[in-house]
Amino acid sequence: MATLLLVGTGLIGGSFALAARRRGLFDRIDGIDTDARALADARSHGVVDAPGPEIRPDAVCVATPASHIASCVEEMGRRHPDAVLFDVGSVKSPVVDALRAGGRVSPRFVPCHPVVGSERSGPSAARADLFEGRSVVVTPVAETDAETVGRVSGWWRTVGARVTECPPGEHDRILAVTSHLPHLLAFALMEVLSDFDDETLRATVGGGFRDFSRIAASDPAIWSDILHENREAVLAWAEKLVARLAIDDDKEALRQRLADARERRRRLDV
Amino acid sequence: MATLLLVGTGLIGGSFALAARRRGLFDRIDGIDTDARALADARSHGVVDAPGPEIRPDAVCVATPASHIASCVEEMGRRHPDAVLFDVGSVKSPVVDALRAGGRVSPRFVPCHPVVGSERSGPSAARADLFEGRSVVVTPVAETDAETVGRVSGWWRTVGARVTECPPGEHDRILAVTSHLPHLLAFALMEVLSDFDDETLRATVGGGFRDFSRIAASDPAIWSDILHENREAVLAWAEKLVARLAIDDDKEALRQRLADARERRRRLDV
Repeated sequence: MATLLLVGTGLIGGSFALAARRRGLFDRIDGIDTDARALADARSHGVVDAPGPEIRPDAVCVATPASHIASCVEEMGRRHPDAVLFDVGSVKSPVVDALRAGGRVSPRFVPCHPVVGSERSGPSAARADLFEGRSVVVTPVAETDAETVGRVSGWWRTVGARVTECPPGEHDRILAVTSHLPHLLAFALMEVLSDFDDETLRATVGGGFRDFSRIAASDPAIWSDILHENREAVLAWAEKLVARLAIDDDKEALRQRLADARERRRRLDV
Repeated sequence: MATLLLVGTGLIGGSFALAARRRGLFDRIDGIDTDARALADARSHGVVDAPGPEIRPDAVCVATPASHIASCVEEMGRRHPDAVLFDVGSVKSPVVDALRAGGRVSPRFVPCHPVVGSERSGPSAARADLFEGRSVVVTPVAETDAETVGRVSGWWRTVGARVTECPPGEHDRILAVTSHLPHLLAFALMEVLSDFDDETLRATVGGGFRDFSRIAASDPAIWSDILHENREAVLAWAEKLVARLAIDDDKEALRQRLADARERRRRLDV
């Protein structure tokens, strides 16, 4: 019998639990959450079977907010010395750095980031198909055991994800511009809109605004953590972006810039 | 028999033609386009019946790129002194200002902006249902005939749109931040991504990036025009936004900012 301990029963961890159960990766899933209501919700939605680690887990999935991941991985490594550990956080270097600063990075810990943001959150939003066709970036370090990386990557593939490996620093630099900066921009856009009342905005916005600003409805606790943890990289990209916010005098030059940007966006075909 | 002359057979004008025909607003639709291929496409897609104004039009819909609207409205007003004129451009003040500078704003001209952007363009993308449930902002000025405003607003309602009235300057100031600045940000984001290859990006982006950057695939000719026409307002909002791109030292203050932004986004419910 294979047992998973889920630490943090929100959208991402909860979805992994549902997907892993459906695919038969684990027979039993125990859950821990500092939020008693979330844990109760997770039980009633069939995300976890029981609270706490009632039996020794084979694997521990750390799905807490970013700023708690390192301490949680450290504690779980101590309590469950034979378990495979992995996290699902959006920022990777600070976790590894904090573990090193605190002593050592366990060879049994595989840092993971499933790129499956949603403006929804909590165990009731969890879905077994959340990872189907989506990307998971795995960021092992020198200390990480290669076989354990293979096992955890296999679990992600089993729940439908495409797995890529990347060093933690490189991951954080890329995600700062593809995910974290867009979130900061969307939040900031909602802030500057305070000049207008809701009725005026509803009468004047279209599909472009709707899609662009969707991520401004993301969880503030999760995102204040992520932005804090990856602050330097996000602000460095923000500076580069701000330098591009010119509107060229030469309209043909502007058109060419926009054409190049469009070509890149279309080629990505995401 | 009621006849519409469509000047510019792209996505917006073409969709109005299809919708107006379906709702029986016009029995015949003639079309003009400086792009012969677009005009041919418009005919083969059933957007227009014939090229040119073969008979005297009752209404003229000016659906050209923003920088050509004023000269086109002026010319059409001269050629068709009894026709109702309206446009579908995304920027309103420069049109009215240019008409005034050139002599007068015709009382028969109703400036309109259907807020229905799409990253698709051209007559083949036109859809009769494009305006269903969407917003159209009508920006009459002192010179505009009130009865004509009522007729044109009625046409928009007939094709499914919600109609709001607003002065042109106020329209441009709102759209600068709800639509034009988001487009500039999305284009600029694609530009700064030139550090990474396509494969790396595809492996690391999620739904947040996809939706945020969708509008970067918008038509470069249309958008270089819009950004140019509304340049001052867009850059003024860009400056306000940039001032918000800080990541507060105080994480609780940051969380509160993001929570307020989320609350606003949720309340809009767009």
